[in-house]
Amino acid sequence: MRATVTIMLKDGVLDPQGEAVHTALLGLGFAGIEKVTQGKVIELNLSDDVDPKRIDEMCKKLLVNEIIEDYKVEIS
Amino acid sequence: MRATVTIMLKDGVLDPQGEAVHTALLGLGFAGIEKVTQGKVIELNLSDDVDPKRIDEMCKKLLVNEIIEDYKVEIS
Repeated sequence: MRATVTIMLKDGVLDPQGEAVHTALLGLGFAGIEKVTQGKVIELNLSDDVDPKRIDEMCKKLLVNEIIEDYKVEIS
Repeated sequence: MRATVTIMLKDGVLDPQGEAVHTALLGLGFAGIEKVTQGKVIELNLSDDVDPKRIDEMCKKLLVNEIIEDYKVEIS
């Protein structure tokens, strides 16, 4: 089983990485870019006997800082 | 238009972040984790007149290091 956890900063939280990418893209001449946000993605390869509920626990205990980050989990 | 670029290290490229997360999850008592890979995701909010082909150009010119990284683009 593969779980993909996508973690993005919440709206309103300062995102210097996203801003740096935005500035760099504008500097390269790309137009029409309104906003850039950078987040992270963690792919977990899990044995099939892992309860999918455990993934949420992993997020809350280690992977995600829920004060400043939102996350979503996709299982495939 | 929103484009989501997901960037992952290619197979075989050392992924110390993924390994650190793996070790930490095992340390917290989570079992059945075979592999952890960490990558990044860049969300681009673009005005609707941007040619989607330009997104690929942004990846190749700035966002992705194609020697060690693979990427995929989703447009929504």
